[in-house]
Amino acid sequence: MGANRPRVVIVGAGFGGLTAALALRAAPVEVVLVDRTNHHLFQPLLYQVATASLEPADIASAVRGIIRRSPNTSFRSEEVTGVDWASRRLHTADGADIPYDQLVIAGGADTATYGIPGVAEHAFGLKTLEDAVHLRTHLLRQFEAADRRPDLLEVGAASVVVVGGGATGVEMAGALVELFHGVLAKDFPALEVARARVVLVEAGEALLPPFHRELGDHARRLLADRGVEVLLGRAVAEVTAERVQLDDGRTIPTRTVLWAAGVRAAGLADVLGLEQAGGGRLVVRDDLTVPGRPDVWAIGDIAAATDAQGRPYPQVAPVAMQAARHLAEQIQRRLGGETTAPFRYLDKGMMATIGRRAAVTQLPFPFPTRAPRPGRRTLRFRGTLAWIMWLFLHLVTLIGFRNRLSVLLNWAWNYVTSDRAARLILSTPTAVAARPPPRS
Amino acid sequence: MGANRPRVVIVGAGFGGLTAALALRAAPVEVVLVDRTNHHLFQPLLYQVATASLEPADIASAVRGIIRRSPNTSFRSEEVTGVDWASRRLHTADGADIPYDQLVIAGGADTATYGIPGVAEHAFGLKTLEDAVHLRTHLLRQFEAADRRPDLLEVGAASVVVVGGGATGVEMAGALVELFHGVLAKDFPALEVARARVVLVEAGEALLPPFHRELGDHARRLLADRGVEVLLGRAVAEVTAERVQLDDGRTIPTRTVLWAAGVRAAGLADVLGLEQAGGGRLVVRDDLTVPGRPDVWAIGDIAAATDAQGRPYPQVAPVAMQAARHLAEQIQRRLGGETTAPFRYLDKGMMATIGRRAAVTQLPFPFPTRAPRPGRRTLRFRGTLAWIMWLFLHLVTLIGFRNRLSVLLNWAWNYVTSDRAARLILSTPTAVAARPPPRS
Repeated sequence: MGANRPRVVIVGAGFGGLTAALALRAAPVEVVLVDRTNHHLFQPLLYQVATASLEPADIASAVRGIIRRSPNTSFRSEEVTGVDWASRRLHTADGADIPYDQLVIAGGADTATYGIPGVAEHAFGLKTLEDAVHLRTHLLRQFEAADRRPDLLEVGAASVVVVGGGATGVEMAGALVELFHGVLAKDFPALEVARARVVLVEAGEALLPPFHRELGDHARRLLADRGVEVLLGRAVAEVTAERVQLDDGRTIPTRTVLWAAGVRAAGLADVLGLEQAGGGRLVVRDDLTVPGRPDVWAIGDIAAATDAQGRPYPQVAPVAMQAARHLAEQIQRRLGGETTAPFRYLDKGMMATIGRRAAVTQLPFPFPTRAPRPGRRTLRFRGTLAWIMWLFLHLVTLIGFRNRLSVLLNWAWNYVTSDRAARLILSTPTAVAARPPPRS
Repeated sequence: MGANRPRVVIVGAGFGGLTAALALRAAPVEVVLVDRTNHHLFQPLLYQVATASLEPADIASAVRGIIRRSPNTSFRSEEVTGVDWASRRLHTADGADIPYDQLVIAGGADTATYGIPGVAEHAFGLKTLEDAVHLRTHLLRQFEAADRRPDLLEVGAASVVVVGGGATGVEMAGALVELFHGVLAKDFPALEVARARVVLVEAGEALLPPFHRELGDHARRLLADRGVEVLLGRAVAEVTAERVQLDDGRTIPTRTVLWAAGVRAAGLADVLGLEQAGGGRLVVRDDLTVPGRPDVWAIGDIAAATDAQGRPYPQVAPVAMQAARHLAEQIQRRLGGETTAPFRYLDKGMMATIGRRAAVTQLPFPFPTRAPRPGRRTLRFRGTLAWIMWLFLHLVTLIGFRNRLSVLLNWAWNYVTSDRAARLILSTPTAVAARPPPRS
């Protein structure tokens, strides 16, 4: 709309990038949103796709549909491969450049392997829909294989090792035992499903490290009650196709390792050649611009925005979304000739689900707060109340009425029947014959 | 359940195989259901997955879930690779044999390429969930590519050629124009989506050949009104990566060819070395046993059951399901020492949908009939009434309350909003790094 409007190019359509685009919808700018995939993904529920509770379309929405009512915004499905700072142009994988006036880097994060041998080759990550569907298929295949050859249970064919005791690891471990004991035990009556282990390995002394220790201990006890083997204070030394080796020499036979031990900034951060902090995150000033480049901004997991004490904010969706709204305001101030203001995250607490009628929720007190400190007072909830809070919050933050309705129905169905409708093994296409490679 | 019970092995968990297994649930036999995939697929709605209306889990159900209340039935996810008739054992891809007392072959059908050059390499089939998801991804990628480079529209990058004017071809063509004009035109405002053609090629003189000519003509007019180019009396001479060549020398530039021109019996029919009729279908006696092998039965698309005049029944779900129930009865008669009775298909009519509030339904008169003849009287419906009949019938024949509810909600949502929630591009998994190959 108007070739003379400044062009804001946003790379990444995750929580940060998409929120920024929507926040600029009425601003006097042209917005171009760029992402490798064609959909916005609600990553907090990805583990439910991997464990057959939800289908991909329940937690993902086509970006083009979301921005349909933003007349100043367009979308490009592209992979950014570089940048020419002098001419203000992004380079892309298909050779076309994207010129910008203001650049917003919101590329998110990838799984961090920390260079541990075998992780890159043998572990599963959980960052994309494809990852989730692939993990689901792999896991169900292991059960089918063990059903044909029960001796495979001995070598851990149907066991899963989840590495990392943060929210993703806890949620995944909890969902896996429910899937194993509530669904697969009935699906495979001839198989001793109880011998398929779910092991959760965490290097620290407690689960859910950012939470109050009391909630981490609660999660540990509850997971153990439900059948998860929780190993604390143990790091992974190596992953192979057949087992996980721990730093104390112990090995756990398994063919399925979910790596949820941490993230690092997306590869985009390396491609751009900007200054990086810990975990590859881009260094940003307190107004979210990149040092020395006032027309380049970075938000979300890829950026190392810090609080007033210089501590980086956590890599979670609320930080990305608040930063996106702050950024949208600052870009408009900058274009209007005003000075920019620093970004301060408003902490509204955190939550993680453990399984059926079990979750933990921690709110800062006073609520909300701009300056959470370790050891300060918190309001803590667990059990059914925390679980209902978790359900409600995730439902209302999902994008789109249709997805909310579909997720609500699937959850109700799964709760009442203990069923998991999406336990489908999808392999490679089979039909006429070989498939033409994607051409674009 | 009793090692001394005769063992009925059913190969294939489609409409025929699954119905047979359920019909034998209370019989004094042990039932083993074998399928390559782990799910029963409701193929009549596969085109709606390919066109982003429904998700895979809406039209597929894990076989193990369906047979959970059949205590005499077990499931094996295996590919059958051969048979030893003398010792009554099936060979499977993983090396384990499956012994049987009675064998039911219900392997379904694959796409028939008729040896036309390029079809096997370049055309898409639509027989599995993977095919549908793959076609959906391919098609959306073509639109993304054309959005980046509008000149690709000239070479038909976003055009689709559907080959075959039967129910699948008509339904697919109708769904594609709705997707293009109702959804993608809004998703890609900068693209001249009207230039993305949907071409339906049929070698015969009318669409929907098994229907009364009046309904085929109705479908042709309606599809043309909605934007489909219908070419009758034209066969495909060759398919390449860039175009379709017709037998009159004309070429249609396209990167997406859906091959719905016919089916042939699944490869299983070749593997077993039994006598085959047209289209590779297994010859069966009128009680559905294979000639000379009274303990081997074949039903559904893989079998050439014929009517009293020796004409093979059509390869449609109702024939397979009725044959399955007949077979279950005959197996019990045989085991009880009684003689078997011939199978006669009870024709209850046929229907095909064209799109929004448009379908055709044809009922035999008198209804139902065991002996439909070309030219006999029929009751014919079209328009909204036929469409509602189609919706209702497909809903009630879907397996499982959850899938019925989910499909109903998706249909209601799609109808009211003209949205297609499942328009997701899913590529290969990307996360940690390379993925371990599936091991089983």
